[in-house]
Amino acid sequence: MEFLKVDSLDSARAKLFAHAKDILGGEEVIPAAQALERVTARDLHANDDIPGFRRSTVDGYAVLCADTAGAGESIPVFLTLKGRVEMGETADFSIAGGEAGEVFTGGMLPAGADGVVMVEYTQPFGENGIAVNQSVAYGENMVLPGEDMCAGQILLKRGKQILPQDIGGLAAAGITSLPVYATPKVTILSTGDELVPPDQTPAPGKIRDINTYALSALAIKHGLVVVNTAVLPDEWDAIEGAVRAGMESGDIVIVSGGSSKGKKDMTRAIFDHVSTPGVFTHGIAVKPGKPTILGADSVSRTLLVGLPGHPVSAMMVFELLIGWLLREAAGKPAPPAIPARIDCNLASSPGKLTCWPCSLREEGGQYIATPIFGKSGLITTLTGADGYLIAPRDLEGLQAGQSVMVHPL
Amino acid sequence: MEFLKVDSLDSARAKLFAHAKDILGGEEVIPAAQALERVTARDLHANDDIPGFRRSTVDGYAVLCADTAGAGESIPVFLTLKGRVEMGETADFSIAGGEAGEVFTGGMLPAGADGVVMVEYTQPFGENGIAVNQSVAYGENMVLPGEDMCAGQILLKRGKQILPQDIGGLAAAGITSLPVYATPKVTILSTGDELVPPDQTPAPGKIRDINTYALSALAIKHGLVVVNTAVLPDEWDAIEGAVRAGMESGDIVIVSGGSSKGKKDMTRAIFDHVSTPGVFTHGIAVKPGKPTILGADSVSRTLLVGLPGHPVSAMMVFELLIGWLLREAAGKPAPPAIPARIDCNLASSPGKLTCWPCSLREEGGQYIATPIFGKSGLITTLTGADGYLIAPRDLEGLQAGQSVMVHPL
Repeated sequence: MEFLKVDSLDSARAKLFAHAKDILGGEEVIPAAQALERVTARDLHANDDIPGFRRSTVDGYAVLCADTAGAGESIPVFLTLKGRVEMGETADFSIAGGEAGEVFTGGMLPAGADGVVMVEYTQPFGENGIAVNQSVAYGENMVLPGEDMCAGQILLKRGKQILPQDIGGLAAAGITSLPVYATPKVTILSTGDELVPPDQTPAPGKIRDINTYALSALAIKHGLVVVNTAVLPDEWDAIEGAVRAGMESGDIVIVSGGSSKGKKDMTRAIFDHVSTPGVFTHGIAVKPGKPTILGADSVSRTLLVGLPGHPVSAMMVFELLIGWLLREAAGKPAPPAIPARIDCNLASSPGKLTCWPCSLREEGGQYIATPIFGKSGLITTLTGADGYLIAPRDLEGLQAGQSVMVHPL
Repeated sequence: MEFLKVDSLDSARAKLFAHAKDILGGEEVIPAAQALERVTARDLHANDDIPGFRRSTVDGYAVLCADTAGAGESIPVFLTLKGRVEMGETADFSIAGGEAGEVFTGGMLPAGADGVVMVEYTQPFGENGIAVNQSVAYGENMVLPGEDMCAGQILLKRGKQILPQDIGGLAAAGITSLPVYATPKVTILSTGDELVPPDQTPAPGKIRDINTYALSALAIKHGLVVVNTAVLPDEWDAIEGAVRAGMESGDIVIVSGGSSKGKKDMTRAIFDHVSTPGVFTHGIAVKPGKPTILGADSVSRTLLVGLPGHPVSAMMVFELLIGWLLREAAGKPAPPAIPARIDCNLASSPGKLTCWPCSLREEGGQYIATPIFGKSGLITTLTGADGYLIAPRDLEGLQAGQSVMVHPL
């Protein structure tokens, strides 16, 4: 229980990442059809050229482009129809000068063709011919083998969060299962003698528990599996038992509350008691979030996280540390922050990063961010927020009209 | 089967919305803890004042502010300690001038107190007193009843997609279940004689089916439940049967492919055959997406949607029409578009909205959008995309450096 100095956010993140390396980062192989929003654990390569043959991108006629040179409305070119390529079939004929083959969108081109004229620019002519009234450039209205993807090409990089279009790309490439990062399992404990379940009307002095609900939802949003939640009194044995159970059953144990002086630093003492090497960060220079505790146990391979009891502070620290860690461990980029101008002055806390929840509105292609003021215990400062901005610790504050980046919530 | 003119996007959307009104928009009541990402179907109000009593926001001493006037490091004020309010307990004493009561963060203030001094600015003094060396303003470091939410206040508006912080707000308000919009059920059919399942190596002329996978993932991303998918040959009976089954089992039937001239407009004819009033839009002035078909059946209460066969076109039209409709029907705002500058000139198609997939990168607090060029059959034009921009139909094109809004994908 040596005294630990308050860490900067960067320093807390660096320590957390170093301890998490052996704990997170496991892989599992899952079906591509179930991979939406999971994160690729390796680079994925195309196995074949896609498409595997020359395809038309329109309904029309495969031709030799040279035959159509100079064709126009008033001077059509006449070609002999050699056959038709049915959808899904091999072209069983080839064409030579003066000939054409009917093709449909996505269908295979007959050998000899080097372009496709759209049906709109043709007319039937005679018994077995067409009149073409537009010239076609070399390679026009067709796709070459490998033009979508080439064998060996990287289709999705490691750390890619899989979107619907990526699932399409995997199907195209014939990749039906893939390695993704395993989903970390988390236990969420909310501590405090003042807490009652949300379905009860709290007696004076008591309040409804928010954190097991809000932090579980946040964990799910960040791709974690919540294995257990509990609301506990400020009693050592109850908390120690629940932390130990969480260490057995998962990868991360979160305890909110219990870390301010009123709770006599019990969370920190329990973390140190049950884990090796134990607590490595106690306090971060972030407002809100100072009483944050970070620890690790190398035996059960668990991260131990003590969050402030205030729901808004707890959620902000979760975003800044656990949300960040999950992206960083997977090599996944952050969701794009939104450039905006703030519409009022904002004071900073000297020596601390300050997180401000804010709402966003669009005005003429620009976003205006309105910080939401409110004391740190008020959940409604966050229910109205579209995101948050971070005022750096080395600034006196932010001026109305200044450009900021708003991180979506 | 009257001839229908190509609709503008706005006109297609207006018709779709009018037909969808009786089909979508059902409500269901679910537990708040399972409501993440669902959309509120009604305004939700707070039932009580939250908090219900005066709470401290710090660890310290409840005082009468007037007593601390002029207090400082060198001129402390001495107060008599009247008692301590344990967490979760009612304050069973009150304080008067010259007295203080110990309180913890989140704890109840004793009657008589009108501010809280942080423990950091106090020292024990004598047997039963404290020395206060900072003055406290009226109401400082405390929260009033109803300061978070007042009884009757709207907590979440109708049409709010529920975020983790909203689940926190619901817990605080004691709302444990709530009405959300029912999840529409969709059947996704991919048609084409050229299609083989993704686990097969396609013979020349054939390609792997992408659309059941990519469109299912997109449907799930938009909060739909996919009740069935099938890959079908271009055969009337097979498609009609599957469309009818989808009309029985759900709210939306999507058929991709089969709508270009090569397929002889079979999808449109089948939709008209099985539904009343049938097809109301055939063709939209959007690139890509022209062969889009929209219809409705008032008996089975189903929307019928024919999408282009090209995966990228199919996904773009899904976003523009079905994604839009689901938001609109729920009164839910679109996710914020990201202001960016394009880094090259973009040609428009005269008379059509043109959708360009693009990638985004940040440069000094600004986003640069790079359009991804590629023929419409290529899924990789979309796997690399962060979003898309829409070039309006009344412009000649967009110039490099111009400001655009990028809609996230």
